[in-house]
Amino acid sequence: MKKKAIIYGVSLGPGDPDLITLKGLKILQEADKIYYPGSLFKSGLKSSYSLSILEHYKLDTTKFEGFYLEMDLTRVKVNELYDLTFEKIIEDYNKDLKIAIVSEGDVNTFSSFSYLLEKIKKENFNVKLIPGITSFALAAAENLAPLCLQNEKLIILPRVQTETELEEALTHFNTVVLMKIKTVMNVINNVLSKGNYSIYYSEKLGTTHQFITSNLEEINKRDIPYFSLITIKK
Amino acid sequence: MKKKAIIYGVSLGPGDPDLITLKGLKILQEADKIYYPGSLFKSGLKSSYSLSILEHYKLDTTKFEGFYLEMDLTRVKVNELYDLTFEKIIEDYNKDLKIAIVSEGDVNTFSSFSYLLEKIKKENFNVKLIPGITSFALAAAENLAPLCLQNEKLIILPRVQTETELEEALTHFNTVVLMKIKTVMNVINNVLSKGNYSIYYSEKLGTTHQFITSNLEEINKRDIPYFSLITIKK
Repeated sequence: MKKKAIIYGVSLGPGDPDLITLKGLKILQEADKIYYPGSLFKSGLKSSYSLSILEHYKLDTTKFEGFYLEMDLTRVKVNELYDLTFEKIIEDYNKDLKIAIVSEGDVNTFSSFSYLLEKIKKENFNVKLIPGITSFALAAAENLAPLCLQNEKLIILPRVQTETELEEALTHFNTVVLMKIKTVMNVINNVLSKGNYSIYYSEKLGTTHQFITSNLEEINKRDIPYFSLITIKK
Repeated sequence: MKKKAIIYGVSLGPGDPDLITLKGLKILQEADKIYYPGSLFKSGLKSSYSLSILEHYKLDTTKFEGFYLEMDLTRVKVNELYDLTFEKIIEDYNKDLKIAIVSEGDVNTFSSFSYLLEKIKKENFNVKLIPGITSFALAAAENLAPLCLQNEKLIILPRVQTETELEEALTHFNTVVLMKIKTVMNVINNVLSKGNYSIYYSEKLGTTHQFITSNLEEINKRDIPYFSLITIKK
């Protein structure tokens, strides 16, 4: 009889290992198994931002199990990997284990954990999610720039596609957070050059490579990494 | 000579004391003084949600200093209280103390800490902010309802004023979080009754009085408290 089988979705926060919650760390310490996501590159190289955070907590590493998603691929391959990972999770669940699946940032905000959550919900498994610090919350903290006050409106826009979309956002909202900006800097530049905004650019937050600036020219000199975002305030 | 004087804005998270970060708790343990906000009612009664969270951490309570904001008041009185509190903070800073000012939820998201931050920045004091879990992140976790996936757009709307505003938000965004809903439930009801949405209502999250539902009729039977929010997904 299964008595303790449970799956936790645990948010690790945006990079600094001390930005996990007490609750999240306690679950990792008590878990029988910890699944973490990573990236598998064409060259065969693997990397995992989650693992680099996990390594700070002095956990029993024999509990660790990585699932490395292939980069530059069709969704088919990613889905196969999720299916395979979920089969392992089902086995663990049926062994009555306490399972943690970790996620960078917040487990519910742009997290690939959500694909596993769909499967977990379909199986009616016992599941609990532990929220986490988002990268845009850390950006606000590092830039000393509040996201919203009183009745201000906040919008989070990943990979903004058109100038019109961004212009409308800036017209109707007090704070606009742009995520996944790497490939759309031309759109962002065109709009920002036309107005007078407060800009906060943040790169690799919570790591030793953290870089922040409010200067648009400086932003444009950067080789913008995936872990970057821009917060714009009127 | 001041060597260690510093002011930390520490996020406590949305209610459950275990949802503070490791970093936040460490700062509270090391601080010489901890300022916390509260409410002062007309009757003379005081209450502080922050204090009720702080009480779980077994801190030296002689470090605590509350600032209780009068309810039902003009901004004049609130501003006087902030000025007074900030004078005390300056004194502490000049005594070379490590000062923590706590905030429910996240220090940069609808937090009254931002008013003190303005003053701190003007004085050029050494300041660091520790981000926290927002109520809407906890709502997503408790409802098992992700806020956004991939390139989905998220909007946070406090005290939505008109049906048009809400309708437009629901047209253009994947997830709409409505905060400070107590006085505007008529607007929300009118819009929600016209469409087919997934609704997640959350009340007093992270406390023993937590209540969540996805049923609009049930929501309308509640005596909606200040600490409540609705997340709507298409």
